[in-house]
Amino acid sequence: MTHHRVLIPSSVQAGATLDISGEEAHHALRVRRLAPGAVLELLDGEGAIALSVLEATDKRGKHDWHMRVRIDEVRHMPPPHPRLEVCASAPKGEASEQLVDQLSQAGAWSWSPLVCARTEVDPREGKLERLERHAREASKQCGRAWRLRVEPRITLDDALAEARGAPADDPCTLVLAHVSGTPYVPTGSRRIRLLVGPVGDFEEREIDAARRAGARIACFGEHVMRIETACLAAAAVILDHERRG
Amino acid sequence: MTHHRVLIPSSVQAGATLDISGEEAHHALRVRRLAPGAVLELLDGEGAIALSVLEATDKRGKHDWHMRVRIDEVRHMPPPHPRLEVCASAPKGEASEQLVDQLSQAGAWSWSPLVCARTEVDPREGKLERLERHAREASKQCGRAWRLRVEPRITLDDALAEARGAPADDPCTLVLAHVSGTPYVPTGSRRIRLLVGPVGDFEEREIDAARRAGARIACFGEHVMRIETACLAAAAVILDHERRG
Repeated sequence: MTHHRVLIPSSVQAGATLDISGEEAHHALRVRRLAPGAVLELLDGEGAIALSVLEATDKRGKHDWHMRVRIDEVRHMPPPHPRLEVCASAPKGEASEQLVDQLSQAGAWSWSPLVCARTEVDPREGKLERLERHAREASKQCGRAWRLRVEPRITLDDALAEARGAPADDPCTLVLAHVSGTPYVPTGSRRIRLLVGPVGDFEEREIDAARRAGARIACFGEHVMRIETACLAAAAVILDHERRG
Repeated sequence: MTHHRVLIPSSVQAGATLDISGEEAHHALRVRRLAPGAVLELLDGEGAIALSVLEATDKRGKHDWHMRVRIDEVRHMPPPHPRLEVCASAPKGEASEQLVDQLSQAGAWSWSPLVCARTEVDPREGKLERLERHAREASKQCGRAWRLRVEPRITLDDALAEARGAPADDPCTLVLAHVSGTPYVPTGSRRIRLLVGPVGDFEEREIDAARRAGARIACFGEHVMRIETACLAAAAVILDHERRG
């Protein structure tokens, strides 16, 4: 049986008692109608899963729900392996939410809006904050101990330079998704950075720059894909290959 | 360079002339503002790609655009290999459109709404017709010579029986997507039927029935996935493995 999951802002200790209010309390008490004695799974999005019991509930104002939970047991899950960092140009409108949802479900580590020559969408600070909240919710829904991170925008040059500058004992493998590429070959890397271009695709010189930076050019399907589809297809294929060990 | 693509209802012969009206003409002439001399790619969705030249345009009423095209060359593309038939319970609301979009881009052969014990969404005839049109449009956008087919609803029992009844010289391999499964192993089959369950997942007895019918139980990710995400992730992984030959 799956317990009701609750997001918490920071980690907790077994034996502690926690007061939870706001949206999470509203959802648990008003929508799910949980009563004292119910078992909850608290997620901090940083690897901790706290099995807890709902001890008391309280409604202080019209929409002001509170609940007190007792933490019985805290498990710390290891971070996902490999750590798949997706750098992909933001798609238009609500497709960004879809991208964040689907990357959460697929088990990617992070998404950064990639800025390259033909990028048209440059999500503002406020939009990224909304997507960050969306990612927390999506991570809760699919039961991830580690939430998907929504990172600040990054240029292609910086995305390549950062990967090249990774420490020798924790290298970062670069993979650029392109229809001209070859089938994906597992790397065994602990850290993989996937590059997905904008609607008009990468320019030739950008693909060359990635290749010079050591990127593999890999193909994840025969047809033209939207950004969000390419991200999920590539993430699913990469994680499938890498997790076979 | 990609030519403007136009859907046509049936196949054509090189040397023929075709009069095209309706939405496709409106889009080419009003939205894209193509002029005589433009090269078009006509797709019948059944494997034919006809390279054509726009010869003349005509506007007969307020929104009644017509264009005459001359067919220069017709190529017949082989059907996709393998033929991936996705039988998946329909998701709610607009997620069906997303499912059809993403399966088109991934290169699946067909989608049938799967009816099993916990299925909640049973798309009506009218909805399936709209999804069929949506699939034609999605197939055009990603340049597929063969469109994704939207098939009638099918029960799990029938989906299993049909696959078992496939001719010996053209067998159908069954794959059921489930978090309890093992990593996907390529089959070499020309025809693969993928089963994806509803929001509440398959019941144990349904998984057993599939196993008895010869289905492999395969896992395509570590986390809980929505129906449309599971379909795309599984399709991408299966086609990636099978196309390596």
